[in-house]
Amino acid sequence: MAVSQIGSYFVGQIGVRSPNSCSYDLLGLCAAKLLQESGLDVRVLEARDRVGGRTYTKRDPSYGYVDLGGSYVGPTQDRILRLAKELDLKTYVVDMGEKAVLYFEGVRQTTSDTGMYLAQLNNPLGMLDSNNIFRKTQNLAQQVPLAAPWNAPRAKEWDIMTVQEFINNECWTSSFTCNSDFVFNLLFYDLSTTGWPGVIYKVWCSPHSAAKPTRSPYCITCFTWLLGEGERRVTSATNGAQERKIVGGAMQVSEKIAALLGDRVVLSSPVLRIDQEDTVAIVTTHSGQQYRAKYVISSVPLPVLHRILFEPPLPAMKLQLVQRMAMGCIIKTNTYYRTAFWKEKGFSGEALSDIGPVSYCVDDTKPDGSHPAITGFILAGHARDVCEMSPEERKQAVCEYYAEVFQCPEFLHPVNYVEQNWMADPFSGGCFVATLGPGVLTSFGRAIRKPFGKVYFAGTETAVKWNGYMDGAVESGERAAREVLHAMGKISEDQIWQEEPPSPDVPHTPFEDDPLEKILPSVPQFLYILLALLVLLLSVLWVYLF
Amino acid sequence: MAVSQIGSYFVGQIGVRSPNSCSYDLLGLCAAKLLQESGLDVRVLEARDRVGGRTYTKRDPSYGYVDLGGSYVGPTQDRILRLAKELDLKTYVVDMGEKAVLYFEGVRQTTSDTGMYLAQLNNPLGMLDSNNIFRKTQNLAQQVPLAAPWNAPRAKEWDIMTVQEFINNECWTSSFTCNSDFVFNLLFYDLSTTGWPGVIYKVWCSPHSAAKPTRSPYCITCFTWLLGEGERRVTSATNGAQERKIVGGAMQVSEKIAALLGDRVVLSSPVLRIDQEDTVAIVTTHSGQQYRAKYVISSVPLPVLHRILFEPPLPAMKLQLVQRMAMGCIIKTNTYYRTAFWKEKGFSGEALSDIGPVSYCVDDTKPDGSHPAITGFILAGHARDVCEMSPEERKQAVCEYYAEVFQCPEFLHPVNYVEQNWMADPFSGGCFVATLGPGVLTSFGRAIRKPFGKVYFAGTETAVKWNGYMDGAVESGERAAREVLHAMGKISEDQIWQEEPPSPDVPHTPFEDDPLEKILPSVPQFLYILLALLVLLLSVLWVYLF
Repeated sequence: MAVSQIGSYFVGQIGVRSPNSCSYDLLGLCAAKLLQESGLDVRVLEARDRVGGRTYTKRDPSYGYVDLGGSYVGPTQDRILRLAKELDLKTYVVDMGEKAVLYFEGVRQTTSDTGMYLAQLNNPLGMLDSNNIFRKTQNLAQQVPLAAPWNAPRAKEWDIMTVQEFINNECWTSSFTCNSDFVFNLLFYDLSTTGWPGVIYKVWCSPHSAAKPTRSPYCITCFTWLLGEGERRVTSATNGAQERKIVGGAMQVSEKIAALLGDRVVLSSPVLRIDQEDTVAIVTTHSGQQYRAKYVISSVPLPVLHRILFEPPLPAMKLQLVQRMAMGCIIKTNTYYRTAFWKEKGFSGEALSDIGPVSYCVDDTKPDGSHPAITGFILAGHARDVCEMSPEERKQAVCEYYAEVFQCPEFLHPVNYVEQNWMADPFSGGCFVATLGPGVLTSFGRAIRKPFGKVYFAGTETAVKWNGYMDGAVESGERAAREVLHAMGKISEDQIWQEEPPSPDVPHTPFEDDPLEKILPSVPQFLYILLALLVLLLSVLWVYLF
Repeated sequence: MAVSQIGSYFVGQIGVRSPNSCSYDLLGLCAAKLLQESGLDVRVLEARDRVGGRTYTKRDPSYGYVDLGGSYVGPTQDRILRLAKELDLKTYVVDMGEKAVLYFEGVRQTTSDTGMYLAQLNNPLGMLDSNNIFRKTQNLAQQVPLAAPWNAPRAKEWDIMTVQEFINNECWTSSFTCNSDFVFNLLFYDLSTTGWPGVIYKVWCSPHSAAKPTRSPYCITCFTWLLGEGERRVTSATNGAQERKIVGGAMQVSEKIAALLGDRVVLSSPVLRIDQEDTVAIVTTHSGQQYRAKYVISSVPLPVLHRILFEPPLPAMKLQLVQRMAMGCIIKTNTYYRTAFWKEKGFSGEALSDIGPVSYCVDDTKPDGSHPAITGFILAGHARDVCEMSPEERKQAVCEYYAEVFQCPEFLHPVNYVEQNWMADPFSGGCFVATLGPGVLTSFGRAIRKPFGKVYFAGTETAVKWNGYMDGAVESGERAAREVLHAMGKISEDQIWQEEPPSPDVPHTPFEDDPLEKILPSVPQFLYILLALLVLLLSVLWVYLF
């Protein structure tokens, strides 16, 4: 029996080898690994000449290694942590440092925690607004069933209401509305979103920002992201999604599984077509090689799935869904310096700004202090602005950005620069994850994981938890593999979805609720309280005077 | 010298043969025809086993022929009219009849002109609102440069403002707002639009309709459509886009060009990849056949363009644009009856309704009275609802719809039924045209016609006039062919875009302005006038009394 996993030519980036997950290409390899461990004969067809997909660790003696794709892991991402441990990979805690820079609308300030939005707002009413909207978002998110968000009671409404509209409806002060506008301009303008929920919240906290009204992501997407682990888990470094990186680079997860699978992984084999007959699926690659399989797992990123010609053709709903998914616009850069001089000046290397081309940057010096570097993310509109530059021109623009944001001309003299322009990557179509337009989730979302004959679909975009992360990629790959095992009668239907036990090495502790956040009134409640106090005062005065 | 035109496998629907235009597949053949007439050696690679793409004329002795794809032509569509005449094809005037049915929210009424929105509104203020918004839309549209709508002064704003938001801002009465809501629910819900501007305006006119707030198309798209020829040209039958059909079917345009090109048209040859070297582009088909060409014209519909693997890869902006374009959801049906009994009952066969599955239907009896039939369009959300039914089930649902809408049980007994589910069509991805999400046009639109090396891009989606129509397909195919001629030094740059002389056989007359439409005040103007009259009256009374 052959189980073919296909990574079509556009799956290339996803990368590991075969059906690699839609993202981070872990999926394909994870599925193949699980199936092989169950005694099946698998083949992994990888479009690129490397495994790893949207994880991409580049190596060079001058800078050691750098993750130019997916990189961070953290508590509650128990699947990727389990897999990394099994493959004998170590993680290290990222040093976020102390002093980050926020630079919006020409106003520069430093802060010890860009995540502490409450502390950033210098307007007390704005603080109430901010607190209330985060609390309300969390509460509304509880109504969304993660595995089928289209069934949420208000799904249709939330699927066409942008987060900006939600904020405009809920907020009483302009300061918070302005802040939130910036998010959309920076990350979500015209839906070329990065799909990076962590940044959404981080940028919400920036006190000095404003932007023209624009499009933003849809509430239901936001709610679904947040519901998984909660806003603080998603946005935090310590105890959150950005806590750790994998020593040696995230692509090693794929490389090590590929080594286990040996010659069952076939590189540079983009899939051309999948023909399904009664008992067999025939997978043909660009070079004409054919694989006959009882089952196929596709880990091709959904926005580029129709690169594969299906015969019979894909069902209408799946064909329409994949046309309505688009990958985000991202260029990830690493700029190297002789010394980490910014630390001597008291900067952590972290900065958020609206001046572009970089939107968010963070220190990427190795834990032992070697290869001092800053990782800079060029996102959405800024990525479009510079995507036609040469890498040399982008390097210059990035260095000028650092010099300006940190007010430090030493940044103009890097010793090295590497980048990955995911926008131009034909095998993944973009990064980090796919985004959906208005109404798409509720109208077409049901088709996302639906198998088609002998073909099953993986990809971090199909994950229920940590959707869009490496952990979601592992979840989806293993789920698809268990769907195949169920179809073969080897496991029961209720074994397809499995809970993951908590990682013993990277424990997660619940975030302590700040009692203040729970009891602080919203702006209208505050005004009612004021009014009640006024009435009370007047009553007392009335009694006292008459 | 070889000029290859490619119709990738997904281009199939587009249809004619080669680079066929993105839509109506005329493009590819038109380009090939023009290039061959200029003395070049061309090859047309057509993905399907037929030419014609999104025009698709099905033939059978039981019903003669039927256009299951693009069909209508009309005055000012001078390019397709010129081409049809050159190919010795005739057109006939569609008989729209007299009595159409409007059936919304359970209220059925008949009307002599579904396009006469002014006559339909039984609320005088609503009529002022309606008149004002149509007038204002036309005026704003004048600010949009057709060839580069992203350069309009308020492009960014209009590209994220939905038509619904525009109407909500501009309208004072709920009756018109309700009417317009219906459009979005029917045609544009969650952007699964049909891209059919004619219907937008037709449905705007329906007096009894309402829908939950939802997403709608973006103003700039609407303005661009309208600017081409004006709202009445787009929506009208007589003197408008729905005036005529081609005798024998629209696909004949492609078939006749294919006959002229002979064995230069290669059917069933979906393109797999395009490799560009210094002086040559190598086009490889799925079957491994290779064509070496100096230039290539792609008429693959843009939403499915990344089915072709480009080496070097497509530029970032083009790759991102095509991910953000999606084809509409449409199932076109023709139901045949023994007699045109509806005409005996005084119905034209035209109806608009919100009950589904059909949204709009119209008589399709042949001009000689043979093969009595109703054409029914199943659109957007309704198409999603029934796309997983069997054709037999859909036939039943369509007949029940006609019986209900026309209150006439004879519709339950058809003698024949044919349909084309474009939603499931892998070569075109859908119909009629591609739609764009919020902000996409201004952010990525510039890439739409931009050549990539030796590859030029056609498709009705790239047309400046009659974008989305067969005429736009011809325009884009001929423009792309002239771009190639210019690149070869055979014509100058200013010869690329050519004005088309008016068709002598299908003359267009200007629509007469109804003076009332010009002078009727808007609702606020009307209220000001009332107020002024009141002040005047009070002044007179004051003078008279004191």
